[in-house]
Amino acid sequence: MPELRRDPIVGRWVIIATERAHRPQQPKCPPEPSKGLCPFCPGNEDKTPREVYSAGRPGGGWRVRVVPNRYPALMIEGELQREAEGIYDRMNGVGAHEVIVETPEHGRSLAELTDEDVTEVLFAYKARILDLRNDQRFRYILLFKNSGAAAGASLDHSHSQLIALPVTPRQVSEEIEGARRHFEHRERCIFCDIVGQERKDRSRLVYENDEFVAFAPWAPRSPFETWIVPKRHESNYEAEPKERLARCAQALRTTLHRIGVACGNPAYNFMVHSNPLRDPSSTSYPWHIEVMPALVQSVAGFEWGSGFHINPVPPEEAAEFLRRVSP
Amino acid sequence: MPELRRDPIVGRWVIIATERAHRPQQPKCPPEPSKGLCPFCPGNEDKTPREVYSAGRPGGGWRVRVVPNRYPALMIEGELQREAEGIYDRMNGVGAHEVIVETPEHGRSLAELTDEDVTEVLFAYKARILDLRNDQRFRYILLFKNSGAAAGASLDHSHSQLIALPVTPRQVSEEIEGARRHFEHRERCIFCDIVGQERKDRSRLVYENDEFVAFAPWAPRSPFETWIVPKRHESNYEAEPKERLARCAQALRTTLHRIGVACGNPAYNFMVHSNPLRDPSSTSYPWHIEVMPALVQSVAGFEWGSGFHINPVPPEEAAEFLRRVSP
Repeated sequence: MPELRRDPIVGRWVIIATERAHRPQQPKCPPEPSKGLCPFCPGNEDKTPREVYSAGRPGGGWRVRVVPNRYPALMIEGELQREAEGIYDRMNGVGAHEVIVETPEHGRSLAELTDEDVTEVLFAYKARILDLRNDQRFRYILLFKNSGAAAGASLDHSHSQLIALPVTPRQVSEEIEGARRHFEHRERCIFCDIVGQERKDRSRLVYENDEFVAFAPWAPRSPFETWIVPKRHESNYEAEPKERLARCAQALRTTLHRIGVACGNPAYNFMVHSNPLRDPSSTSYPWHIEVMPALVQSVAGFEWGSGFHINPVPPEEAAEFLRRVSP
Repeated sequence: MPELRRDPIVGRWVIIATERAHRPQQPKCPPEPSKGLCPFCPGNEDKTPREVYSAGRPGGGWRVRVVPNRYPALMIEGELQREAEGIYDRMNGVGAHEVIVETPEHGRSLAELTDEDVTEVLFAYKARILDLRNDQRFRYILLFKNSGAAAGASLDHSHSQLIALPVTPRQVSEEIEGARRHFEHRERCIFCDIVGQERKDRSRLVYENDEFVAFAPWAPRSPFETWIVPKRHESNYEAEPKERLARCAQALRTTLHRIGVACGNPAYNFMVHSNPLRDPSSTSYPWHIEVMPALVQSVAGFEWGSGFHINPVPPEEAAEFLRRVSP
């Protein structure tokens, strides 16, 4: 059983997952693309754990498929058993770890799908949150994508992941806390203020439609980092109707396509941040997506030690570059 | 001039350093070891900016040498010019970025030096802090080492780095804040409490001498992460007398040697955390060193999005492994 441990000084949680590997290894160069029997390809459905969600396509067969991760970081069975060990805190590594297979077509990237396909992926995210939030042990569900070996993907076939956690992660609670402080002073949502300033200023704008804005944030951790934020404030991803997810799909696919063209199909990560499952809906914090291309060695001693990031590309330059990519 | 920008939501600072590179690139596999004219080798002293510190050896020549970084992330000249841009904050990227060349011998690692050599390196850190803290623009000095390409080193010749910053980095202020809360409740330093529990428990202990303890922390971010903490509480690194730095050198060198043997000379980072320059000395926060081997891909979507880390090696196992390495 994996274990969740809390650093007693800063409150950072760590998953000790011995099942994932026992002996340390040096990081490797990107592995060969997986050939042959890809477990995410149609016809190989029996190579994955039993699916928990699927959406069909008009002509038959599946379009999106969600399955439990075969090498989960957390285990779905068991009690939390929160306990102290002297001054330390631990609990059982209980949680869900699922894989969203985004397309039946091996070798087709998320940016190469149609807007309708991407809408089905985003709708699958929503369906999984709505199902998993019934499990009272979970406090937060993080949706994320690792695309490319340099961004941590171990399989080529286009997929994203979901981890349901028994605690709210620090990265999210810090955003919520910062947004709460802003609201307290100004009675306004800070993300809505940011969207307002970015739409007026336009120098960091990447794309917008009637419902969503994509822009390079003021202080990006990595070159070409791009955030996608709803124009109409909504704290909970799972509360969005499918029509709005379709507009988000358009913004996400366009952003990924432009980053791919501008930077030569880099590896990338994206993360969906949303209000924690057990919190009331929030007027100060909206859900949003953060896209981070893996273009530079991002974390070395200075970053580990300071939490600072060094970014060689100003967001205004990155955004201009992305705006110029033809559709 | 590089620029310091603050994320308005979580307060994370980013250095926008356009001088360092203009066009994005994919991360590369480790580069070839630098051949030929290494700028850190004796005889090539004119290939570095003018040295700011050096310690000689008995037989002549230098033993440790500190020079400004040729490609600094921050610039030493200029005013801070803190200013707002709408809801955002920026200031000029003013700071110092120096390289501590740890030995004249190319190809000799820090772990392969003598305890006396390492003492001279740690003493050079202290000398540089004492000099740089006279510059009233600086609030914090981060000392760190990137060893090996996978840990972000671009030159082979053994060296560490120093960055003097006009703000206290978030990673440090979060530790200070956590330690302050603990002290408020219990009137005790949390690091001293941790050292007490680790010395009693012994399962995570890696090494100790009369002045320092090296142990695997309860919630390590990466396999074989090891902290070196003074037994006698002292908040400011630069306040340590040379005799105590010599004991620290022994603990650090032993730790690096054992990690090298146990894990096959992995790339690693270490960071020295200390009390900020302008703060009064602190009873709740001690300086310490955090050593992080680069053994797994450490940051992907889940880590970026949550701040959680997944670690496949329990610290008790790592520490046992390290204790078993013969001296």
